[in-house]
Amino acid sequence: MHDSKEHIVSSFDRDLEAIQARILKMGGLVEEAILEAARSLEERDEELAEKVRKSDRAIDELEEMINEDAARVIALRAPTAVDLRVVLSVMKISGNLERIGDYAKNMAKRTGVLVQMPAINGAHSALRRMAREVQLMLKDALDAYIQRDAALAQDVIHRDADVDQMYNALFREFLTFMMEDPRNITACMHLHFIAKNTERMGDHVTAIAEQTVYLVTGEMPEESRPKVDTTGGAFDETEDEG
Amino acid sequence: MHDSKEHIVSSFDRDLEAIQARILKMGGLVEEAILEAARSLEERDEELAEKVRKSDRAIDELEEMINEDAARVIALRAPTAVDLRVVLSVMKISGNLERIGDYAKNMAKRTGVLVQMPAINGAHSALRRMAREVQLMLKDALDAYIQRDAALAQDVIHRDADVDQMYNALFREFLTFMMEDPRNITACMHLHFIAKNTERMGDHVTAIAEQTVYLVTGEMPEESRPKVDTTGGAFDETEDEG
Repeated sequence: MHDSKEHIVSSFDRDLEAIQARILKMGGLVEEAILEAARSLEERDEELAEKVRKSDRAIDELEEMINEDAARVIALRAPTAVDLRVVLSVMKISGNLERIGDYAKNMAKRTGVLVQMPAINGAHSALRRMAREVQLMLKDALDAYIQRDAALAQDVIHRDADVDQMYNALFREFLTFMMEDPRNITACMHLHFIAKNTERMGDHVTAIAEQTVYLVTGEMPEESRPKVDTTGGAFDETEDEG
Repeated sequence: MHDSKEHIVSSFDRDLEAIQARILKMGGLVEEAILEAARSLEERDEELAEKVRKSDRAIDELEEMINEDAARVIALRAPTAVDLRVVLSVMKISGNLERIGDYAKNMAKRTGVLVQMPAINGAHSALRRMAREVQLMLKDALDAYIQRDAALAQDVIHRDADVDQMYNALFREFLTFMMEDPRNITACMHLHFIAKNTERMGDHVTAIAEQTVYLVTGEMPEESRPKVDTTGGAFDETEDEG
């Protein structure tokens, strides 16, 4: 974790490393939840969906531990300026991870409902590709955070536009399916939610990357998330989180 | 803000009062945004919608100020135990308010799209009632926070079930409209998003109330948000945020 330059390791640094190890553990669980939730949907695997739903508890517990750790470090070490900023970033990032975990859980929750409905051609594999992209972004965002790599973080921020584009394409596809056959409406509403929540996962990953840029450069990336609308206005379904 | 008992006002208390005043200001702006966003939708008032969208900037700025204030207090006063908990709660609450503000902004954003589509009978006034309920809950949640009134906070938590119920009813109504006439599908998709986001605002208000219960009692209310499903399972569209 440390670079090769000589470096006096303070108590604060040690505390921080312990917290960052927990962040990485939490991130690993969240990445797994994203992938498994998407797989449970595509393969109509209710058992796997149940596993994802149960694993959210461990994610929530890690968030609480991280917040407690961070509060303890603030109370004990009274960090100032840059160090305080680092500790606060840890709390924000664990909050983002917790929200992404919730979205994965909710995706898994819908698997149980969707298995009872007609399959919508191609939607599940498109959703899985989107989830896979978000998971890769998350992996890079956490690497960027740990390495304090602003360039990699900036790259993650730009890739969020791809996720937005995938979402907009799916939204239009669902509209078409619903208009073609009203029997598709209920399934499409559920699938649409899943797509929307996956797009929101991407926003939370972006927020993690923005924290990294902020830590490294001291400034939040301005206009960092260009929302892509490929539909000429009326169907830009991405929502601002800023 | 202080009760009549004699009370030594520390520097920490003064700092805290200044931050809480900002929380109240931010809360006032968010309440206004909720009501005006719903009104812009019902009255198809694009100018009001534009105002709501622009006012979100002030809300975001207040969140940043509150976070900076809180960090400064932690750094300067090194509060421990209960005091630290209070400062951290301020950061969480401003985060919840910011998210509610985003939802209001996104609601207003859809007004511009929906004015170009056929009106869906009764939906707008139902949405406005729902928004009004959330705004009242927010008002009480902030009062409960400032007064450290756990009973009022608990009341807010219970009222979230009403919002969930309103949402579930609307979801079923939109499904019916879409099945009756495919020309309603696009408008209903937008309205459905608005309903969903209003339901989520309720979840963030509940989180504020939960913080208050935690501050007063030292424990998070367990199973505090009973999700109401009046649809027998398949159409419980509320999502877990826990």
